[in-house]
Amino acid sequence: SANKKLLILPGDGIGPEVMGEVRRVMDWMQARRAVSFDVEEGLVGGISIDAEGTPCSDTTVARAKAADAVLFGSVGGPKWDSLPFEQRPELGILRLRKELQLFANLRPAVVMEPLAEASALRADLVSGLDIMIVRETTGGVYFGEPRGVTTGADGKRTGFDTQIYHEDEIARVARVAFDLARKRRNKVTSVEKANVMQSGRLWRAVVGEIHKAEYADVELENMYADNCAMQLASRPKQFDVILGDNLFGDVLSDLAAALTGSLGMLPSATLGAVQPSGKRHALYEPIHGSAPDIAGKGIANPSAQLLSFAMLLRYSFGMEEDAALIEQAIERVLQSGLRTADIMQTGRARVGTAVMGEAIVREL
Amino acid sequence: SANKKLLILPGDGIGPEVMGEVRRVMDWMQARRAVSFDVEEGLVGGISIDAEGTPCSDTTVARAKAADAVLFGSVGGPKWDSLPFEQRPELGILRLRKELQLFANLRPAVVMEPLAEASALRADLVSGLDIMIVRETTGGVYFGEPRGVTTGADGKRTGFDTQIYHEDEIARVARVAFDLARKRRNKVTSVEKANVMQSGRLWRAVVGEIHKAEYADVELENMYADNCAMQLASRPKQFDVILGDNLFGDVLSDLAAALTGSLGMLPSATLGAVQPSGKRHALYEPIHGSAPDIAGKGIANPSAQLLSFAMLLRYSFGMEEDAALIEQAIERVLQSGLRTADIMQTGRARVGTAVMGEAIVREL
Ligand SMILES: CC(C)[C@H](C(=O)O)[C@@H](O)C(=O)O
Ligand SMILES: CC(C)[C@H](C(=O)O)[C@@H](O)C(=O)O
Repeated sequence: SANKKLLILPGDGIGPEVMGEVRRVMDWMQARRAVSFDVEEGLVGGISIDAEGTPCSDTTVARAKAADAVLFGSVGGPKWDSLPFEQRPELGILRLRKELQLFANLRPAVVMEPLAEASALRADLVSGLDIMIVRETTGGVYFGEPRGVTTGADGKRTGFDTQIYHEDEIARVARVAFDLARKRRNKVTSVEKANVMQSGRLWRAVVGEIHKAEYADVELENMYADNCAMQLASRPKQFDVILGDNLFGDVLSDLAAALTGSLGMLPSATLGAVQPSGKRHALYEPIHGSAPDIAGKGIANPSAQLLSFAMLLRYSFGMEEDAALIEQAIERVLQSGLRTADIMQTGRARVGTAVMGEAIVREL
Repeated sequence: SANKKLLILPGDGIGPEVMGEVRRVMDWMQARRAVSFDVEEGLVGGISIDAEGTPCSDTTVARAKAADAVLFGSVGGPKWDSLPFEQRPELGILRLRKELQLFANLRPAVVMEPLAEASALRADLVSGLDIMIVRETTGGVYFGEPRGVTTGADGKRTGFDTQIYHEDEIARVARVAFDLARKRRNKVTSVEKANVMQSGRLWRAVVGEIHKAEYADVELENMYADNCAMQLASRPKQFDVILGDNLFGDVLSDLAAALTGSLGMLPSATLGAVQPSGKRHALYEPIHGSAPDIAGKGIANPSAQLLSFAMLLRYSFGMEEDAALIEQAIERVLQSGLRTADIMQTGRARVGTAVMGEAIVREL
């Protein structure tokens, strides 16, 4: 069969380091599992600004479109912090989401058993936690027009953005959430501020309609975003799938991630629509950022990047078995007591990126 | 001196019950502390919809403007849940904020020592927690125009809102945050999404200008809202004052409140500008909602309403000593082991609203 086309975008900070461990796992797979990837590497973020004057060039967009899946590292760092709004490294990921119409961001907030103690929450409240956040990522206030900062006749400035959703945008991401719920614990909590926002009113209405027409077998709960933040911080295990728009999804998925206590362990997938050809654009990236403070030191945790690769195998290539192998290898390495600095616990062995990666390959 | 004019708006659900305990404390104060209040009671929320056809009538607005301070209970309940957007009980509080220009919502997230164990967070992470959230409450996406749900020629709907801030709106609430920080631990964390929102860019710029020109002695930190949610859920004690716009402030203040583990204990104040006359509109309300599920059962925790009254005494009437007396009485009652259902712990004595209120008056 044709090789699987993969575009790797390591980006900035610890991105290239942790991506190195993915390469190691890919080598193992090509050698032992008779799979073969057709891998290209491209530029995004600050490194792309330096090389090509833009955080995401047309070339990178074209290669991402041509690939079967994109594995993304992380972008940003102090070097580019003072650049104007339109030139920031973060625009790299925003452009990719928009151009590939990657509208559904899937963020599991899972607590791996050996790390239940790492959470800031009491262990009994997070042990076994398994939430999936589905966040809309091509609409809302992130892209709505008009937007800008204007200066009035009196020299005073006004800044404004437009929060806007078309019902089809809501419906397609809602379907992703309901489909996932059916394979999990069959419950979707849809989050908005329908009590103060008109887009939130429409959000609640459309999710309700899709639910009634197509997913009446799934439990649907509507919750205000402020209440959802409260509930996550007090009784997180009540949730199965949480569905939110671009902005609420951003804040709540980071909150849920933090509750697990191990950001260095969390992957994400961002999916587009299934096209008539059967192809579906998809991008995979760790939740953590580029962590410039520890970049280049060889101490970053490669797990989230590896788990993102596992998600890629599962969702884009249907390689469930290989995905599960990687996930189990990581869990076993944790059980064996190895820890990178970010998840260090007393009594465990602190190791760097490479030792962690090697241990994972050995478990494979 | 002229009596202090107080407007009490008990609202719906548990509002009237917990307000009853405030009345008890006021009686004690009038008898023992030689203060005298000139108290009126008015309608707001669902009860106002039933009586006057609107969640907040012109009469209530006029009385609120004439008062020196407003003590608000809570609004809403299943009875009014299916009303259209423009008629919901919540619009009562939104109208009061807007008409009285109550732009600065102060929400302390404080852990009273006897309750450190009640938090979902590990006790060592929250014990001694004392954060003040300052939330803008008259602008942003809550009130921005245009807003609405429109239907296109194809019968499909689009919902939209406008997130908009004028620089003066940002400056005035920033000053409130900096002033508070000076009386606390001298640090403000200003929260936005300047990486994706133009209003956020202006927010960061203006807060930075005010800081430089007027508050260079205070430490200022800028943080993205998603990161702030993460940090609150993992290392909450790093914060002193958190400053956010209407929407981020809503979500983050509820998150911070939930971290304390005792919503029934948390008050808030919403302040307007100091007018040339020296008068300042102000409204005080508990963080918790109307809790329809327990309304009328006599089991609600009156503490948050009483602590809101204490804030009122402190901020609106300059009665620091009386405010502190009430706060200490509540803390001592907790130490003595009394608990309402919401903060019940094993080994403590479960009591209802009235017994809790009586115990607090006895401590006074
Ligand atoms: C980098 C930033 C623009 C981005 C976002 O806000 O979407 C990030 O926080 C994320 O969640 O992927
Ligand atoms: C009731 C609702 C409109 C309100 C808000 O969102 O502001 C509430 O959540 C609050 O925080 O006071």
